[in-house]
Amino acid sequence: MYKCSLERMSDKIKTMSKYGDAGHGGITRYSLSKEANMARAEFQKRMEAIGAVVECDDVACMYATLPGSDPNAKRIVMASHCDSVKNGGNYDGILGVMTGMEVLETVAAEKIPHKHPLTAMIWTNEEGSLYPPAMMVSGIICHDYLPKELQVNFEYDNMMKSKPMDESPYANFGEALAASPYKGAKENRISPENSCAMFEAHLEQGPILEDAGNEIGAVQLVMGMFNYSITFRGFSAHAGTFPMAKRHDALHAAAAFLVELHDRYDAYNAEVVAEGMPEFVYTTGEINVHPCIHTVIPDEAVVSLDVRHPEPKVREKCMEILKELAAKDWKQCSCEIKEQWVRDTVYFDKQLVGFVEESMEEMGAKWQKILSGAGHDAQFCAYMIPTTMLFARTKDGLSHCEPEHVSDEDCTAVATATLNAVLKADAAL
Amino acid sequence: MYKCSLERMSDKIKTMSKYGDAGHGGITRYSLSKEANMARAEFQKRMEAIGAVVECDDVACMYATLPGSDPNAKRIVMASHCDSVKNGGNYDGILGVMTGMEVLETVAAEKIPHKHPLTAMIWTNEEGSLYPPAMMVSGIICHDYLPKELQVNFEYDNMMKSKPMDESPYANFGEALAASPYKGAKENRISPENSCAMFEAHLEQGPILEDAGNEIGAVQLVMGMFNYSITFRGFSAHAGTFPMAKRHDALHAAAAFLVELHDRYDAYNAEVVAEGMPEFVYTTGEINVHPCIHTVIPDEAVVSLDVRHPEPKVREKCMEILKELAAKDWKQCSCEIKEQWVRDTVYFDKQLVGFVEESMEEMGAKWQKILSGAGHDAQFCAYMIPTTMLFARTKDGLSHCEPEHVSDEDCTAVATATLNAVLKADAAL
Repeated sequence: MYKCSLERMSDKIKTMSKYGDAGHGGITRYSLSKEANMARAEFQKRMEAIGAVVECDDVACMYATLPGSDPNAKRIVMASHCDSVKNGGNYDGILGVMTGMEVLETVAAEKIPHKHPLTAMIWTNEEGSLYPPAMMVSGIICHDYLPKELQVNFEYDNMMKSKPMDESPYANFGEALAASPYKGAKENRISPENSCAMFEAHLEQGPILEDAGNEIGAVQLVMGMFNYSITFRGFSAHAGTFPMAKRHDALHAAAAFLVELHDRYDAYNAEVVAEGMPEFVYTTGEINVHPCIHTVIPDEAVVSLDVRHPEPKVREKCMEILKELAAKDWKQCSCEIKEQWVRDTVYFDKQLVGFVEESMEEMGAKWQKILSGAGHDAQFCAYMIPTTMLFARTKDGLSHCEPEHVSDEDCTAVATATLNAVLKADAAL
Repeated sequence: MYKCSLERMSDKIKTMSKYGDAGHGGITRYSLSKEANMARAEFQKRMEAIGAVVECDDVACMYATLPGSDPNAKRIVMASHCDSVKNGGNYDGILGVMTGMEVLETVAAEKIPHKHPLTAMIWTNEEGSLYPPAMMVSGIICHDYLPKELQVNFEYDNMMKSKPMDESPYANFGEALAASPYKGAKENRISPENSCAMFEAHLEQGPILEDAGNEIGAVQLVMGMFNYSITFRGFSAHAGTFPMAKRHDALHAAAAFLVELHDRYDAYNAEVVAEGMPEFVYTTGEINVHPCIHTVIPDEAVVSLDVRHPEPKVREKCMEILKELAAKDWKQCSCEIKEQWVRDTVYFDKQLVGFVEESMEEMGAKWQKILSGAGHDAQFCAYMIPTTMLFARTKDGLSHCEPEHVSDEDCTAVATATLNAVLKADAAL
């Protein structure tokens, strides 16, 4: 059992938090931005300082590798991303990058013997905050291994045309990439030919570990999900002149639908939990109303629905309830539902999950098995090579915001768990 | 009993519909725009052709006056506006202007004797579509006669600074006004010193006349109203990682509130109608949710509420229900209500309303008494001089949109009713 260094981890957290510092506790560090390049330069400097070889691939992913004793062994990779959402926090993504760095620094400092090359990696553009979609580059790299219905969302040529959502010196992702000092060769991409395992450490982004009094979690899977848009159509008329009974108010329709959907889903969730399964999570986060003027009755309201659960039969029942509700009359408005995307549950590699659980147990950590409701690069990578994830306890469950926080101790604990799981993989693979 | 000319009215409708023609049946004719100037030039040309004197005031209102036989008599004014909303129809506003023109043309053609000067007038910037607020210029002109709480919304200096909502060659309303060829002298403004009555013909903008099989309506009042914003605050978290029971979802709160508000208001409206009063109309037309992202639980939702009824006690009870609901817990979110504006009911001049009703009866029109739920320049003018309004039947109740339609016959009917009411006023005042 080896241990990572709290002091070294704290120093990395403090340093990385400067790159994109928005002045009030968090960062804005879009992918391929000046700020992201500062974090990448820090990564390169520290990795080269311990003798790691740094390479880049054609989509600007960075790889810092310490060679192993077996010249024929494939790499064991530890990776996450260094880009953030707008006004995000100091842990999402970069924690997994710092974990990879810390593992390599510990291996170098303590001269830990290992057979496989060990690689700390940065995935480009995970958040997709400036250039959508999210998980763009893992989508590109893992493209050929993804299910067909996901492949269409990550075609290389289309991704290069992705337009910026905020201020950017470049017209699209392709131009930003061409201008990046971190654009390298396609043959450097992570692949089943050069890598045999991928570990991603991440903050949990929810309150489950904290509420259970645990520091770290061994992630079992990324929940399957479906995302639908639900459109209500009535017609517009003047707020002051149109009799109540003749109105076809699309916002009233959407409100009535939302209330009934929540009631039906909450009732079904109680059944799901009673059967011993984890609850499903569902969110109606977006509503867009037309014309959205206080003196006009709305003629259209579009609501989003996001449902996540590991079990296909639970998601199917949720879909069934949605379809049943969509068939009803909502305040004399029509209701149309449309699939935005659907993803199956991704189960992480059983052997790697086992190594993570053994490590957590051996180090005496307060740990638990946990599921991921959020998407991560690891979820696409899992289609390509054996992959798993580790979670760190998140203060108040907050993420994607400036108060996002993980204690230095918990960051170090997740790095120690990663280190020992990697060494188990190094021995077994 | 005199009659206006269907042929002449049809020609005016056809001609005016060209100015701002958007190519699919309606117009965009912002106040003080090139398109509005074309309509104003047409007004001037036709009015000068019958010997009327055309003058402008300092806020670009236009007045075309035929002198009367009594040199000391004050003007009787027929007025509305020639500006439209974006992609509006061919009747809102301009129908009242064409009515004034048609009345003067009939008086001139048939040499109808009259004591008072008769004036067809164009109010500037009623819609406020390019330079808000709506009814800006009647607010400026009638400013000193308005209730104190309304005066603050129409201070001349502030109005001049109104910034454009859409593309405009001018930085603000004041600059557009300074550049207008129709800017004249302040002493030309309509006032109690120079005018003794104001009639405004308008399309109904609702389906009440049509549903009752009536052509025209004698407007009794403009309903009092209140407009509130209602804000729900919870907190944001990730759609995939946050347990359902810990959520404080502001959109779910707003939806539950909307459903209960509609239920409570509909129940109370049934009581109002049972007491022999007209129903109140209420609209929740606007909703803005933050951050409005499908993968994030909303932390804020703001809803608008617009309530209109002639009787203060009905509006008070509606307010009471609103406050009662606002005090409840909505899905673990806070609820805060805030007044946006409140306006009392404006009763039109009893004598002028009587002249309109007598005229409608004498001409054998299918007519009824009606209330206005929408705001009009007449409503501000009524605080300054005796004022009333006439409504024309509106196809399907539609207005502020391109399909907005009033038949040539109904346009002519409202002009005939105006003509005879004006002549009754001419005799009596």
